[in-house]
Amino acid sequence: MRSDRLGETLLPKKIALPVFASDALSSVAYAPDEILLTLGLAGGALALTHSWEIALAVVVVMVVVVLSYRQNVHAYPSGGGDYEVASVNLGPRAGLTVASALLVDYVLTVAVSVSSGVQNAASAFSFLRGHEALVAVGIVVALTAMNLRGVRESGSAFAIPTYLFMAAVLGMALVGFARRTFGELPQAESADLTLAPEAGYEQLGTLAMAFLLLRAFSSGCAALTGVEAISNGVPAFKKPKSTNAATTLLLMGAVSTTMLLSMMSLATWTGVHFADDPQRQLLRDGVPVGDSYVQDTVMGQVAKSVFSGFHPGVVLVSVVTGLILVLAANTAFNGFPVLGSILAKDGYLPRQLHTRGDRLAFSNGIVILAAAAAALIVAYDAEVTALIQLYIVGVFISFTLSQTGMVRHWNRHLAVEKDERARRRMRRSRAINAVGAAMSGTVLVVVLLTKFTHGAGYALAAMGVLFALMIAIRRHYDHVREELAVREDDTQQQLLPSRVHAIVLVSKIHKPTLRAVAYAAATRPSRLEAITVDVDPDETAQIQAEWLRRGIPVPLKSLDSPYREITRPVVDYVKSIRSGNPRDLVVVYIPQYVLGHWWEQLLHNQSALRLRSRLLFTPGVMVSSVPWQLASSQGAEERFDGPVAGDVRRGEK
Amino acid sequence: MRSDRLGETLLPKKIALPVFASDALSSVAYAPDEILLTLGLAGGALALTHSWEIALAVVVVMVVVVLSYRQNVHAYPSGGGDYEVASVNLGPRAGLTVASALLVDYVLTVAVSVSSGVQNAASAFSFLRGHEALVAVGIVVALTAMNLRGVRESGSAFAIPTYLFMAAVLGMALVGFARRTFGELPQAESADLTLAPEAGYEQLGTLAMAFLLLRAFSSGCAALTGVEAISNGVPAFKKPKSTNAATTLLLMGAVSTTMLLSMMSLATWTGVHFADDPQRQLLRDGVPVGDSYVQDTVMGQVAKSVFSGFHPGVVLVSVVTGLILVLAANTAFNGFPVLGSILAKDGYLPRQLHTRGDRLAFSNGIVILAAAAAALIVAYDAEVTALIQLYIVGVFISFTLSQTGMVRHWNRHLAVEKDERARRRMRRSRAINAVGAAMSGTVLVVVLLTKFTHGAGYALAAMGVLFALMIAIRRHYDHVREELAVREDDTQQQLLPSRVHAIVLVSKIHKPTLRAVAYAAATRPSRLEAITVDVDPDETAQIQAEWLRRGIPVPLKSLDSPYREITRPVVDYVKSIRSGNPRDLVVVYIPQYVLGHWWEQLLHNQSALRLRSRLLFTPGVMVSSVPWQLASSQGAEERFDGPVAGDVRRGEK
Repeated sequence: MRSDRLGETLLPKKIALPVFASDALSSVAYAPDEILLTLGLAGGALALTHSWEIALAVVVVMVVVVLSYRQNVHAYPSGGGDYEVASVNLGPRAGLTVASALLVDYVLTVAVSVSSGVQNAASAFSFLRGHEALVAVGIVVALTAMNLRGVRESGSAFAIPTYLFMAAVLGMALVGFARRTFGELPQAESADLTLAPEAGYEQLGTLAMAFLLLRAFSSGCAALTGVEAISNGVPAFKKPKSTNAATTLLLMGAVSTTMLLSMMSLATWTGVHFADDPQRQLLRDGVPVGDSYVQDTVMGQVAKSVFSGFHPGVVLVSVVTGLILVLAANTAFNGFPVLGSILAKDGYLPRQLHTRGDRLAFSNGIVILAAAAAALIVAYDAEVTALIQLYIVGVFISFTLSQTGMVRHWNRHLAVEKDERARRRMRRSRAINAVGAAMSGTVLVVVLLTKFTHGAGYALAAMGVLFALMIAIRRHYDHVREELAVREDDTQQQLLPSRVHAIVLVSKIHKPTLRAVAYAAATRPSRLEAITVDVDPDETAQIQAEWLRRGIPVPLKSLDSPYREITRPVVDYVKSIRSGNPRDLVVVYIPQYVLGHWWEQLLHNQSALRLRSRLLFTPGVMVSSVPWQLASSQGAEERFDGPVAGDVRRGEK
Repeated sequence: MRSDRLGETLLPKKIALPVFASDALSSVAYAPDEILLTLGLAGGALALTHSWEIALAVVVVMVVVVLSYRQNVHAYPSGGGDYEVASVNLGPRAGLTVASALLVDYVLTVAVSVSSGVQNAASAFSFLRGHEALVAVGIVVALTAMNLRGVRESGSAFAIPTYLFMAAVLGMALVGFARRTFGELPQAESADLTLAPEAGYEQLGTLAMAFLLLRAFSSGCAALTGVEAISNGVPAFKKPKSTNAATTLLLMGAVSTTMLLSMMSLATWTGVHFADDPQRQLLRDGVPVGDSYVQDTVMGQVAKSVFSGFHPGVVLVSVVTGLILVLAANTAFNGFPVLGSILAKDGYLPRQLHTRGDRLAFSNGIVILAAAAAALIVAYDAEVTALIQLYIVGVFISFTLSQTGMVRHWNRHLAVEKDERARRRMRRSRAINAVGAAMSGTVLVVVLLTKFTHGAGYALAAMGVLFALMIAIRRHYDHVREELAVREDDTQQQLLPSRVHAIVLVSKIHKPTLRAVAYAAATRPSRLEAITVDVDPDETAQIQAEWLRRGIPVPLKSLDSPYREITRPVVDYVKSIRSGNPRDLVVVYIPQYVLGHWWEQLLHNQSALRLRSRLLFTPGVMVSSVPWQLASSQGAEERFDGPVAGDVRRGEK
């Protein structure tokens, strides 16, 4: 789709919801587990009594954050998202902090979602157990390959699994509620077990207990990741863009909170016991269940209870949950290169990440994301609980800075706005964003306090490294721009070289060489000569004889090479010509073979490439590559082109 | 050292011996162990009675091989070695087989020597135990770094440790013989243990027994690896080259066999028990010694007996053994790239491996060798016994083909030689080589029979893959040469293009752009224009305004880019110009920044490089890079140069 016809591919709300919400919705697959197992550290009683309250607290935060982001969507319809809001209102360093946090979080989205997807799938397909990390890495590799090949995100590819997932979870909730109403909801498979506290958690004081509740709440806040996705995607919505985006955001919040609360209710009613260390914490008749016990996810256990006697229901829930989690991971594959491109445009990442339409630019981002996620999956053995500890902190850094930025935004506008109705609206928005900022900031502090030593410290360290790297890159670009700037009184740059000395490099006498000589002659240089490096005297003599015999109308000079190397004699010769007259220009013509496959390239042109790199260091020298297209190069050209990941959510197809 | 002054750096025999013999001599550090533990599979009695006979058989083979290679040295003083002998006399496929075998063996030389070095060093420094693989990989990395940095092999660096090793081992033998003569040679630490047969080896029939003896013999033949080194290095010797090389070969054989026989005698006299699985096979009072028992190498045990009461002697033997084994590994780092260069010259490996004096060319070889060796060390946990099973097969393939080639060589010469004295000499040489060929062939069959399933199969498979790869590369080069050859009646190649259309690519207005315009103008093209790609309309307008304001005397055209990409619009534009007149030449001038560090390069020029690669696919287009040297590029040029691994043994410094 060309950019002047972008309007035709904009997303209606019913497609935008699944495109942007899969990440946020999918967290219902692991957030309840994390709440239950954290509470369960202190034994089954705590989980039973407090899990619902924790879920409610998460829902309150979710509602506040959704309402806050509705303000962002209206105020910044450009799709710059939190990075833009923080940069504009709080300065570039705040923006860069948000960017570092989001980059790290994209990696964790992939790692957590894929790991959780595999664990959920294992509820129905038990042969996956014991190979979770391997399967998860396999899925990451598959996603990478798909995105590298440039499979287009299409609205319906998202719509079907996301709506299926919503239907499955909400349907399961309805069936569960109905069966409970009629008093026939069976107990979960783990209901008749006892959940013993972990060592060190047997007798908790009030403070320790409060701390554990906060930790459970932090983990539950994983449900909020992905809420910001819509604010990055406003340009992809149908008009009126902001209104539609805000409505979609509200819809997403409603579905997400309903799902979370339903899952917690069902888990409580069916008596699910979920432990951090099930083999030792779960007791049957006072004895640990031991290594043979396999703990299904909460979603899996609930499904088995609700759909007891109807196995296809369990399989459906399991499959669509796995699917939507993979979809959630895929959103990171689309979001990461887009954010990279914005950062590159601002000079914080290598410039080539910015160039749209060049697949290679996005490929680097995709490969970096996949490698980092795969490394995390392997390091943490696809354990969602361990990975969750690193997650969330980035999201809440981003939420907090973005909402604080929004408060500044309204302050700025209020300072100039005269119309009282507009002022009232702004004050209301500012209040909402202020509450959002305060709430996100509080959660961030809670997350840092409860999770720093459990892994959030690593995530912060990674963000710090990214931050420093991006600052350094920007500094480098600024420095180069300074060095290359043309001063107003600088006329010397436009001086024409007085004489052009052309040199054709000859290694053999074949078609590419003859073409190079012809092309060099066509530029009518002041002086034209061919040179060959005398590495092997016999070969050189042969070339010279052949040169004369063919009557090629250009003198061929042979350069001594006492060390039998090629690069240095040529460089030295070129320098010796230059030193004669510094205003001369030397043009070196290098014949180059063009082949179709990268492995063919490995077999050719290496000396020429090396020589070219060396010559570029010499002032007053220009290097011309004279290509010769071999038969295998035909058709290779097309392989460069193709669609690019993230097109749909940027509003381009 | 320049090649016309090579004479001054040639090696006298006393330096040549250590330079070329470290690999062959060092095998005395592990060959006795392998003989003893293979025999020990059937219990202690067999090892006691037959180890000496096996060693004697190995010595016989060694004598025959040394005498055979003396013929090679005289007949092929060029240093081409086995690859040359096999190629010339048996055809290129035989040569390639030898080459594949040698390449694999170089990798194994590194893996075996370093692993054995670490095991030997552990006899004196017990803290190394349990970390052998890690330490071994560390040594490989260190050797790689050293060779990549281009540390020169120097004669004395070899001479000191090699002579020290010879002095230590032969000195130990003398002391041991003396103490035995006076009846006061102490028993080894393992002498009072019993060596029980392994499961399945308790009651061997005659055939199985013979097979086990042959297997022990095969392992002992590890002592022969490295014998061929001198025949590759004849050009490095002082004149008369061949005579000196032949004498050195004889010396090496004498020292090597003396050492091997001495070690076996001492091991027998001190009652060393050496087991494949010491913790279970070795019994003290009928009970296995168990996991706490640590088995020293034979060299270590013998040293502890001979130098009992004089610990520095033990440490000296241990240290110099470790040293010479590392030196032996280093010879592979020198030999591998040299062989690679010869194969590249013949078109069997990528051409860039051939270019002498270019460090990068050798770096690839060094890194490949190190990576393969490290992988083997990790895979086999630095177990010499396991690695030895893969070794040897390559050496004997090479011996056999080389000696068979020599027989053919003499046949060829005898067919034309008239002088009876010369004929007699040739017939004598032919007889020696024939015996050598028969002997090597027999050993090869024995090695394959006894070791194929123990690992030699993998080595053969690796050789097969290399062989196929080299054939494919050669085929590719032949194909390209065919395609590029200029036919006699082919004058079209020399036709001058009728018109030159120059295009300068503008992305910003800065010094590099102005230089590119000036350089392009200096070539006086028929038509000259500048183009910029309109990715961002504001930026483009700004560039155009600035262009006019500066009065740059070249029209600036802006290309539409509906997909906001850079490469395609330029390529399309260039093609559109070309299609007007196919005899036109289009020259695209691309400004390029030259920076000093590779990471700086990553931040620049990527779009330009991509564009350049794309344009080369279009016929009739030439791409000129106009370099702008940034301040950081100063001094970077020198980093390209440095010495190259393997110079000494090629006879160049």
